Amino acid sequence: MSTGTDTPARRPQRRLTLAASIVGAGASRKAWNWPGTTWNRFADWEHYRRSAEIARSGTLDAVFVSDHPALQRTADNGPSHLFDPIVLFSAIAGAIPDIGFVLTASTSYNSPYNLARRLASLDSIAGGRVIFNAVANFNPDIAANFLADELLDREDRYRKADEFLRVVKELWLSWDTPEGPEPTGPLWDETTARTIDHHGEFFDVRGPLNVPVGPQGHPVISQAGASAQGIDFAGKHAEIVYAALLGKQAALDYAATLDAAARRHGRPADSIRLFPGVNVYLGDTREEALRRHEVFSGAGSEDDLIARFLEQQRVLNPAFPRSVDVDRPLKAEWFEPQEDQTRPVGFSRAVQDLVRTEEPTTRQIIRLVGGAGGHRLVIGTPKEVADALIDWWAAGAVSGYNAHFPLLHDDLERFVQQVVPILRAESVFPTEYDSPTIRGRFGLPDPRTAHSTQENR
Amino acid sequence: MSTGTDTPARRPQRRLTLAASIVGAGASRKAWNWPGTTWNRFADWEHYRRSAEIARSGTLDAVFVSDHPALQRTADNGPSHLFDPIVLFSAIAGAIPDIGFVLTASTSYNSPYNLARRLASLDSIAGGRVIFNAVANFNPDIAANFLADELLDREDRYRKADEFLRVVKELWLSWDTPEGPEPTGPLWDETTARTIDHHGEFFDVRGPLNVPVGPQGHPVISQAGASAQGIDFAGKHAEIVYAALLGKQAALDYAATLDAAARRHGRPADSIRLFPGVNVYLGDTREEALRRHEVFSGAGSEDDLIARFLEQQRVLNPAFPRSVDVDRPLKAEWFEPQEDQTRPVGFSRAVQDLVRTEEPTTRQIIRLVGGAGGHRLVIGTPKEVADALIDWWAAGAVSGYNAHFPLLHDDLERFVQQVVPILRAESVFPTEYDSPTIRGRFGLPDPRTAHSTQENR
Repeated sequence: MSTGTDTPARRPQRRLTLAASIVGAGASRKAWNWPGTTWNRFADWEHYRRSAEIARSGTLDAVFVSDHPALQRTADNGPSHLFDPIVLFSAIAGAIPDIGFVLTASTSYNSPYNLARRLASLDSIAGGRVIFNAVANFNPDIAANFLADELLDREDRYRKADEFLRVVKELWLSWDTPEGPEPTGPLWDETTARTIDHHGEFFDVRGPLNVPVGPQGHPVISQAGASAQGIDFAGKHAEIVYAALLGKQAALDYAATLDAAARRHGRPADSIRLFPGVNVYLGDTREEALRRHEVFSGAGSEDDLIARFLEQQRVLNPAFPRSVDVDRPLKAEWFEPQEDQTRPVGFSRAVQDLVRTEEPTTRQIIRLVGGAGGHRLVIGTPKEVADALIDWWAAGAVSGYNAHFPLLHDDLERFVQQVVPILRAESVFPTEYDSPTIRGRFGLPDPRTAHSTQENR
Repeated sequence: MSTGTDTPARRPQRRLTLAASIVGAGASRKAWNWPGTTWNRFADWEHYRRSAEIARSGTLDAVFVSDHPALQRTADNGPSHLFDPIVLFSAIAGAIPDIGFVLTASTSYNSPYNLARRLASLDSIAGGRVIFNAVANFNPDIAANFLADELLDREDRYRKADEFLRVVKELWLSWDTPEGPEPTGPLWDETTARTIDHHGEFFDVRGPLNVPVGPQGHPVISQAGASAQGIDFAGKHAEIVYAALLGKQAALDYAATLDAAARRHGRPADSIRLFPGVNVYLGDTREEALRRHEVFSGAGSEDDLIARFLEQQRVLNPAFPRSVDVDRPLKAEWFEPQEDQTRPVGFSRAVQDLVRTEEPTTRQIIRLVGGAGGHRLVIGTPKEVADALIDWWAAGAVSGYNAHFPLLHDDLERFVQQVVPILRAESVFPTEYDSPTIRGRFGLPDPRTAHSTQENR
C-alpha cells in the first residue's frame, strides 16, 4: 500500500469540500450584538435553522458546531455553545434536506452505547449526512459538571478515546440493515444482529446496537487533536481531520504525517481527508475586507491588531520578547508550545510552523492567523478568497475547508452568493448535491466493505 | 392546601388531553409485517415522521415513545425501540409544528448535565413541547450495554432518580432567558446565570446549564412507576403520571393516592395530571372491533384470547389455578404481584384491582386488559370509544390518555378521522391547538412561578 516515500507528490481530491461553522452568532465576539441583528439570537432555534438553510443554498457539504458542555462566561467568548449538537442537528435534519453535519461530541463525557445509538439514529434519519467529530477533551469547567473521576491525563484520555471509538465502530456494524424481501420467520432474521461482547479498560458493552447499519454504513469519523496522541488516534480512526494549518507547505507536510500514521495502523495511504479551518473576511475590495477584519477582530485598526497579537504572545509564552520591530521577520523559537498551556497544542504549533516556513513580519502575520480558534485567515475580494481556497486544494494538500464567518448570517450569505459561484465556475465545486451521503461527497469508502475485507484476511 | 379528606370529589380537567404512542410499527406484534405495509418501516424515519403528522392533524397533544437502549429480540417484541428518542423527537420537532413529545429517558443510564441540556435544547427549539418521562429503570439487557456498576436495587435507583431530578430541575432554572433590551455591558448580564454547586451521593454538578430557561420554564416531568418508591417519587417530582389503570374507580383511587403523595411533599393538591395508557381497537361495528382485537392480539378467536390469558397468568403466578370456569368471576388473590417478577409491579396491581372492584369473568377480562403493556382496552365503534374516553375524564379521574394503536399508521389515522371529531363535537377536545406549550395544554403551572414562591418562603 505504501508508495515507498514519506512525502509523495499529491493529487487534488475529486472536488473541493466545504463546511460552514454555525456556532453562536458568528466567529467574532462582536457578532452577537452587531447593529441590525437580534442580540439574543444565539438562544433562538430559527437563527440556526436559517444558517443551515443558507449553507444548503450554496450546496455546502455540511454545517459545523464545536461544543462545550458548560456555560462559557469569559469576556473572550460570546454565548455560543447552547443547544446540544445532537439535538440541534437532529432538528435541522428534520427541517432541511441535503446539508450534512459535523457533530462534535466528547469521548470523555458520554457513554459509547448511548452516543453510538444517537449518531446512528441521526445518520439514518438524515440519510447519511453525519460526521462525528470525536474530541478527547479535558477542561476543568466541563469536568465540574460531570463526575470528578473524569479527570484523566492526555495519555489516558486518548487511550479511553481509542477504546470508545473501537466500541462505537463495532456497534455501528452490529445489526445489518433490514432490507430485501420480508423475512419468512416469525420476526426478522435474528442472526443479522451480533453481540460485540466488549470488555475493556474503560467500557463493558455487549451490544448489538438497536439501530441497524445506516445509509452510509456508519457516520464518518473526524478528529482534530494535533498532539502526538491525537495524530496516532487519527491514524487509527479518522477519515476526516480538522486542523489549524496556516501555510500550504505545512498542510502538505501534515497530510503526509497523517498518511504515515494511517499506514502505521495498516490503513491505505490517502485514507484521511485533511479539512482545515479558515476564517473568511470578504470585501468588494481588498481594502474593505481588511477593514472588516479589523472591525470584527475587535480591534479598530491595523495598529490595534498588532498590539493585540503581541500581547497574546506574551501571555502564551513568557520568553516572547517585550519589544519587537513589527516589520522584521518573527522568530520560530518565540512560539514554542508550553507544557501546561490550556490552548490546544495544534494551534500553537501551527503558528510556529508558519513563522518557520514563511518568515512573516508581525504586520504580515496578523493577516494570516486570527479569529475563531486561531485558524488561517483568508481575507479579500470574492475572487481572492476563491483563489486562496482553490490553491491548497489544487496542490493536493487538502480536501477542503471548514469555514468560519465573523457574522451570521451576513457573511455566510455573502460567501454563498459571491464565492461559491466562482468555485463552481472553476469546476472545483458542484452546482447541486452530487451525493446524498458524506462518504459520497468526500470520496470515502463504505466501512461495510472495509469491514468484510478485514474479516476475509 | 389540603381539602381535609383523602378522597375529595373530583372535577374534570378543563379539557381532555391525548397522546399517541408511535413506538415501532404499532402496538401489535402483528403490525410490523401486516399485509399492505412495508415490513422494515420500523427502521425508516419517514414512518415516524408520518405518524407524528397524522397525530398533529388530529390536534393530539403529543406523541409518545417508550425506550429500551438494547436490541430486543424475544418473540414477544417486534423491532421497536430503534432510534434514540431525543434524536427522533428533535428531528420531528424540526419537521412538524405543534405536536408535543412524551420523551422517555433513563435516570440510570444518563448523566444529569447532558440529559438536562438535551431536553432543554429540544424544549427551546420546539417552543415548549417536551414532556420528560423519567424512568428509574433496571433491565439486565440494558445494563450489559453500560457499566456493570449501574446494577442498583430499586431503593437505590429511586434515590438516584430523585437526586437526578433535583439536579436537572435546578439546572433548568439556572440561566434566565436572555430577553428584553440589549444589555449595556460587554456581553450579556452574567448575573443572570447561577451555579448550582450540587454535591450529592451520586452526582457532582456545578452548573449553570448552558441552555437558558425555555418557553415553558422547563420540560414537563412525567413518571410511570407504581411501586411505593415510584409513587413517592411522583409525589416529589411528577406533573404527569402515566399509569396502567383498568377501572374508573381504580383511576379515582390512584388520583387520590398521587394527590396525597404530592401533599406529603408540600405541593398543592391537583398538582399531578393522571394520564393512563389505553389500547384502542376501532370498528364500524362492535363486532368488527372485537374481531380486530382478536386478530391483532395474535389470537384468532375469543377462545384463543382466553387460552392465552390463562397461560400468561399461570406463568406470572404459580398459585393461579390450573382450571377455571371462564364464565365465573375471577378471584383477586390469584393476581398477587410476585416479589421477583420482571414485569412492572403497576401492571400486575392494576389487574388485581380490576378483579377486586369489578369482578369480571375470564371471558370479560380479556376485553378489558391486553395489548401494549397490559393497558386498558377500549374496543368498539368510534362513538363507544369516545364515550369510554370521556367517561373517566368527566368523572375527574384522569386528564386524558396515552393511546396505543395496534397498527401504524392505519389505526391512528382512523382514530383521528373517526373518534377525534366526536370528542370535538362533545366539546371536550379542541379543534385547533389551544396553547403552544404542554403546560398550557395540560393546565400546569410555570415552574418559574413555583420557584420564586419557594424562594420567598
